[in-house]
Amino acid sequence: MRILSGLQPSGRLHIGNYFGMMEAALNLQHEGEAYYFIADYHSLTSIHDAKTLRENVRELAVDFLACGLDPAKCVFFRQSDVPEVTELSWILSTVTPMGLLERCHSYKDKVAHGISASHGLFAYPVLMAADILIYDSDVVPVGKDQKQHVEVTRDLAVKMNEAFGEGLLRIPAPRIREETAVVPGLDGQKMSKSYNNTIQLFEEEKALKKKIMGIKTDSTPVEDPKSIEGSSILALYKLVASPADYDVMVADHQRGGIGYGDFKKRLLQATWDFFAPMRARREAILAEPGYVDRVLADGAEKARKIARATLARVREAVGLG
Amino acid sequence: MRILSGLQPSGRLHIGNYFGMMEAALNLQHEGEAYYFIADYHSLTSIHDAKTLRENVRELAVDFLACGLDPAKCVFFRQSDVPEVTELSWILSTVTPMGLLERCHSYKDKVAHGISASHGLFAYPVLMAADILIYDSDVVPVGKDQKQHVEVTRDLAVKMNEAFGEGLLRIPAPRIREETAVVPGLDGQKMSKSYNNTIQLFEEEKALKKKIMGIKTDSTPVEDPKSIEGSSILALYKLVASPADYDVMVADHQRGGIGYGDFKKRLLQATWDFFAPMRARREAILAEPGYVDRVLADGAEKARKIARATLARVREAVGLG
Repeated sequence: MRILSGLQPSGRLHIGNYFGMMEAALNLQHEGEAYYFIADYHSLTSIHDAKTLRENVRELAVDFLACGLDPAKCVFFRQSDVPEVTELSWILSTVTPMGLLERCHSYKDKVAHGISASHGLFAYPVLMAADILIYDSDVVPVGKDQKQHVEVTRDLAVKMNEAFGEGLLRIPAPRIREETAVVPGLDGQKMSKSYNNTIQLFEEEKALKKKIMGIKTDSTPVEDPKSIEGSSILALYKLVASPADYDVMVADHQRGGIGYGDFKKRLLQATWDFFAPMRARREAILAEPGYVDRVLADGAEKARKIARATLARVREAVGLG
Repeated sequence: MRILSGLQPSGRLHIGNYFGMMEAALNLQHEGEAYYFIADYHSLTSIHDAKTLRENVRELAVDFLACGLDPAKCVFFRQSDVPEVTELSWILSTVTPMGLLERCHSYKDKVAHGISASHGLFAYPVLMAADILIYDSDVVPVGKDQKQHVEVTRDLAVKMNEAFGEGLLRIPAPRIREETAVVPGLDGQKMSKSYNNTIQLFEEEKALKKKIMGIKTDSTPVEDPKSIEGSSILALYKLVASPADYDVMVADHQRGGIGYGDFKKRLLQATWDFFAPMRARREAILAEPGYVDRVLADGAEKARKIARATLARVREAVGLG
C-alpha cells in the first residue's frame, strides 16, 4: 500500500502543527510505503520570495527528520526535484472540466478571504492530482478540507483511464484524518501563526519559558479551585504530559491551594521533556553537514524513478513524444 | 533576433494552410534565428487519440520540411520533447491573475462555439507564455486572433521580473501577420477542413484531377465571357500561376470562347507544377528512414539547452530546488 502526503513549507513548525498533522503523518510510515514530499511548487502560490521559500523548505525537512521521519522507511523529497509532475499536470488539465475546479471550496474560500485569485491557486487541485497519480498512490491521508481535492483526483484518473485505456492511472482513496482536538495557543484561541500565539516546536529554552510563564490566567486566588473548562494550560499539558501527571494536574485544579505559576512550571517542564529527544536529534542533524541534502536527494531519486515510469506510460497513451 | 512560432498539428495540410500560414512562417527563417515547434501539448486540448496525434505531428513535420523548412537554418522540434516548458508554465501560473485568463477572447469564443471548456483550454495562454519565454524569444509572429495571447505573455514576463528580478525574462514583441487573401475551397467558401472543401498540399495526381475538374461552375456558354468576380478557379490560379499566366487567364475569361474545362486544366497543371519541387523533396524525405526523427531530435537538443538555462535561472530566482 503506497501512502502519499504533501507537506506545506509555510514557516517554522509549532506545537499545533505537531499534534494537528505531523504526529499523524509520522505514524503512517509504519503502515505502508510512505511518500512524503515538501510541496514547494504549491507554496509558490503564496510565497514570492526565494529566500523565505528555501528556508521554509529546509526547516520543514529538518523538523520532520528530527521528529522521527525515518528516511530508511519512507521516501522523503522536495516536490520540485521531480519536475515530471508539472508535465502530468498539464496533461490532466486537458481532461479537466472547468466546472470541476470552479466548484472547489478551497479556492472559493481563499478568494472569499481576500487572497488574490491567481491561476496557480485555481489550478492547485490539478497539480495535487498529478502529485498523487504520478506516484501510483493508493491512499492519501488528508484533513476534511482537502477531501474534495482527492475526489477531483479520482475523477481525473477515471477520465484519463476512460479516454486512454483502463489501468493507465491508479485510482487513489482518501483517508480522512480524525479531527484532533484543537491545540490552543498562548491566548486561548486555536494555535496559529496568523494569531501570533504559537509555541514553536524547537523554541529556545528562555523563549519557551517566557511564553509559557506569560500565559494569561484569571484572578482566582491561590487557595480556590481553578476552572478546568477552557484552560490553555491544561489543554496543552494533556498533549505533552503522561496521563497520570495530567490527572494529578486536574485534581490539583479542582482541589485548590496551588497557583497558576506552579501549573505553568509543570507545563514548561513537560513541554521541554516531550520534545527533548527530538531536540537532540535535531542538533545531531544540524551537526552533520550535508545530511538533509543527502536525504532529500536520495528521496528524489527514488520518487523520480516512479514518476518517470508513470509519465512514460501516460505520454505513450496520449500520443506524446 | 530570435523568432518563435508554434505550429498546430491538426491534420494533413491543405493549400489554404500553405498560403495562409506556412509560406509566411517559412520566410521567417531567413530573417533571424527561427525556432519552430510542433505544439503537441496544446493539441491535447482537442485530440484525445494517441494515433491521430502522432500521425498529425509526423505529417506536419514532413510537410514543413518538404515545403522548405531548413533544419540547418532554424531549430525545429516537438514541444513535448522539451517538457521543461510545463514547469515554467506552473511557475507562471502562480503570478497569473485569473482575470487575465478570463478576459481571453480565444477561450470565450471556443466555449461560445460549444467546445467543452477544459482547464487545458483555459490555461492555454499560460503554456503559450511559457513556450515564448523559455526560449528568450524576441519576436512572435501571430495572426490577429493570437495577439492577445502575446500580450498576456508580456504581462506575465513583466510580473515575474517585478517579483523576482529585472532581466529574469526577456519581454517578447508580437508581429501581426498581414491578413492574406482568403484561399477559396472547392465550393467557393473559405478553404477549411471543417467545410470538407480542401485540396491537400500533396494530393495524389488522380485525386487532385478529380477535385479540380469537379469544381462547380455556372452555366455560361463556352463562347460567352465568364465572370471574374467570385471565381474559385481564378482565385486559386492566382496563387499558383505566374503573374503573366494569370493575366492571360483573366483576359481569356473576359473575351469568351474558352470553356471552364480548359481553365480547370490550366489550374490543375499550375497547381501540380507549383508543388512539384516540394513533392519531390517530400518523396526524398520519406525515402530516407529516420531523417525526420533525426531532425526533430537535433532540434529538441538545441531547444532544450536554452530551455534548461532559462528554467535554471527562474528556479533559482523563485527559490525552487
